[in-house]
Amino acid sequence: MTATELRQLTLAKAIRLITDKKISARELTETVLSRIEALNPQTLAFITVMNAESADAHRLPLQGIPVSVKDLYDTKGVRTTAGSKIFAERIPEDDATAVKRLKDAGAMIVGKTNLHEFAFGLTTINPHFGTARNPWDPQRICGGSSGGSACAVALGMGLASLGSDTGGSIRIPASLCGIVGLKPTYGRVSLRGLVPLSWSMDHAGPMTRTVEDAAILMEIISGFDPLDPYCRNVPVPRYTEALTGNLKGIRVGVATTYFNERLAAPVELAIQTALSSLEKLGAEIVRVEVPGTSIHRAAWLQIASPEAYSYHELRLQKYAALYGADVRGRLEAGRVLLSIDYVRAQRTRMLLKQQCRQLFDSIDVLVTPTVPIPAPRIEDLHKPWGDGAETALAALARFTRFFNVVGLPAISIPCGFSSEGLPIGMQIAGKAFDESTVLQVAHAYEQDAKWFQRSPAI
Amino acid sequence: MTATELRQLTLAKAIRLITDKKISARELTETVLSRIEALNPQTLAFITVMNAESADAHRLPLQGIPVSVKDLYDTKGVRTTAGSKIFAERIPEDDATAVKRLKDAGAMIVGKTNLHEFAFGLTTINPHFGTARNPWDPQRICGGSSGGSACAVALGMGLASLGSDTGGSIRIPASLCGIVGLKPTYGRVSLRGLVPLSWSMDHAGPMTRTVEDAAILMEIISGFDPLDPYCRNVPVPRYTEALTGNLKGIRVGVATTYFNERLAAPVELAIQTALSSLEKLGAEIVRVEVPGTSIHRAAWLQIASPEAYSYHELRLQKYAALYGADVRGRLEAGRVLLSIDYVRAQRTRMLLKQQCRQLFDSIDVLVTPTVPIPAPRIEDLHKPWGDGAETALAALARFTRFFNVVGLPAISIPCGFSSEGLPIGMQIAGKAFDESTVLQVAHAYEQDAKWFQRSPAI
Repeated sequence: MTATELRQLTLAKAIRLITDKKISARELTETVLSRIEALNPQTLAFITVMNAESADAHRLPLQGIPVSVKDLYDTKGVRTTAGSKIFAERIPEDDATAVKRLKDAGAMIVGKTNLHEFAFGLTTINPHFGTARNPWDPQRICGGSSGGSACAVALGMGLASLGSDTGGSIRIPASLCGIVGLKPTYGRVSLRGLVPLSWSMDHAGPMTRTVEDAAILMEIISGFDPLDPYCRNVPVPRYTEALTGNLKGIRVGVATTYFNERLAAPVELAIQTALSSLEKLGAEIVRVEVPGTSIHRAAWLQIASPEAYSYHELRLQKYAALYGADVRGRLEAGRVLLSIDYVRAQRTRMLLKQQCRQLFDSIDVLVTPTVPIPAPRIEDLHKPWGDGAETALAALARFTRFFNVVGLPAISIPCGFSSEGLPIGMQIAGKAFDESTVLQVAHAYEQDAKWFQRSPAI
Repeated sequence: MTATELRQLTLAKAIRLITDKKISARELTETVLSRIEALNPQTLAFITVMNAESADAHRLPLQGIPVSVKDLYDTKGVRTTAGSKIFAERIPEDDATAVKRLKDAGAMIVGKTNLHEFAFGLTTINPHFGTARNPWDPQRICGGSSGGSACAVALGMGLASLGSDTGGSIRIPASLCGIVGLKPTYGRVSLRGLVPLSWSMDHAGPMTRTVEDAAILMEIISGFDPLDPYCRNVPVPRYTEALTGNLKGIRVGVATTYFNERLAAPVELAIQTALSSLEKLGAEIVRVEVPGTSIHRAAWLQIASPEAYSYHELRLQKYAALYGADVRGRLEAGRVLLSIDYVRAQRTRMLLKQQCRQLFDSIDVLVTPTVPIPAPRIEDLHKPWGDGAETALAALARFTRFFNVVGLPAISIPCGFSSEGLPIGMQIAGKAFDESTVLQVAHAYEQDAKWFQRSPAI
């Protein structure tokens, strides 16, 4: 097998090849590490590259599989910066629960990926560790906050990664980099050992090249953790068994407002085409009105700002100058909000959750674009796009944030390319704790459309 | 049967007698209504007396049983004041879920009981509907906010009542009036149709003369309600079957700090004696340190104030003069709190819940006094008691509020009388959704000690 074939392996294939002794974990890890060595200087996908030692000894589900994790997951003995200067030398004494579960499953952690400082931003333009680049065009952002993870997975610098998502931080970079990113149901994956942003909306989840790979990782990282007070004790299904390819009887909701508005032309086209494919695969398309679309953004802000501020309060008072200007500004905004605003936002949120429960009585999944536009150029971020009503930066989380507010699972998968060769993402959201149906629909579409077969040129 | 025997019936006995046709629902209801007519002018236990029509027709679990409900439970077509002037003429179009379940079980709602205005206070000194009086001594408070319910049950003005509890509002009046009051686990009983005080700490629950009666009501009012976003879908056990009388193997925790401090002498004595009885009944006494006792009061305030304010905001701006001075002051305090304070309090709360989960690994229930003092005289409320470190008013919720913060079930049952003939209450708290063990321990003690056989003289 050539180095290119090796690093382009999906998790699922790599597991089979290692099990059948067709390849060794050592050569796979070495290939990935060389890839990182070759590409990290120009992509800045990694903050720390680890001295991964492959071990072919025991038979574990991820034995010898090289993966990366976002650098806000604690790693025992390896610095975890959260993309910040303040934590630049912070070395945790313990692994985050999700990292521990990966390691216990035999995975090799090859490095800690770059992110937006403290995960509080969507670009991964990091003032301390540099700007992670889009694998399809280095002049463009890879999205964020889990930008380094998306870049690494797209370029074969590790077969998969763990990201985190508070407003879209897994799904947005997945969409802009042409990979798969799943934000599970709130409470499904332990948050213990992740530097928090807004704990009532933070989610940990997998970033992979295929839906099957996301399902494989979900089986490993999901499930109750008594050390995370927000983690729910709900049985974890065999996600990989949900990938039937058959969509007969599946009701796919499509929003008649908001999620179909102000889309870049290639995004609109790609989603329309994808919906036709879903119908062809047996799904029934149901037009629905999604509740709370006008109010969820305000609720998100009024919840995230004070939660984020409360975690950073003491450090902000002592070391304000060590924060990047954008993140510091966002954090400071949380200081002056009144509790009645927060309380009202949380109340709004509960009502929205309830309304969504009713919405999902009539559909099994909801399909939307992940991001209204393909990856913008770095220089265009603060410029209006399209009809000029919003900046490119403001467009990024327009469709993802909603699912952090209501806590429902949502995946982004590739659904096409713009004429400039930039990937476009489709978001599929589902019922609480029903990642299985989300993965099932995503997998059926993916295997039919086969966008994952395209790779960036570098 | 005499009128006195009739109105002193427990729920359990009344059900049996009606089933066996030994008494008719009609005579029971009429006895209760005459009792209300005779005693309400002096006790002010009721805000509204209803035209209850008894019906002996169908066979339902509570067929023809006369009960009251606190006047913040919505009742279809019958005004629900929440003890306020603002809602004095408010007539709901629907029953609260718990009321509906009572009615569906055949119960007769005989009236809506007096309460502290909007449930935001512990005395039931109500500026609009008068002061509900303690059934053992009319110079004393009956406690609150569910004071009218406690008074009514103690005096046979209905065989049971529903109260609500945000900081002790079921347990405190139960303790001061010598009856049984259960605050279930948060999320166990639907809050739909209750005027909210602090929705993340509000609880609906039964107030009865015996533990068995509380168990009977719990079986009827508990369980999932899709219309209450905070209601949890946890199976409801047969609570009445938990009342075994056997305490072998039950570990009863007793706090080594806080819950044993600053007790009036008769309360201290009563609790010590009750603990000996529990030991005699087979329970093992385990000394434990309860976490978070020093911090929970601040957390309670920082959560309750803005939640309460946010519900009242518009009305406060328009009709401030219609609120009682004490409640208005408490509400206004919520207006200026910062969200970071609220957020920190909710965070503290999650950590406390987690620590309590660990505490309850080593015990099955925790026993404390319900209130450190017997019912104070109305004129003494704002005076220091005992060593002078706190007012009588401030003492009332010292031991109850904790269980609203952590959401665990807690019951108050009579455990003795002061030399002045005032009832003393014992609080028994348990694990989340384990009301069964709480009821089991309470029932075993009650049947042994038999305090429920004493009735007020009037």
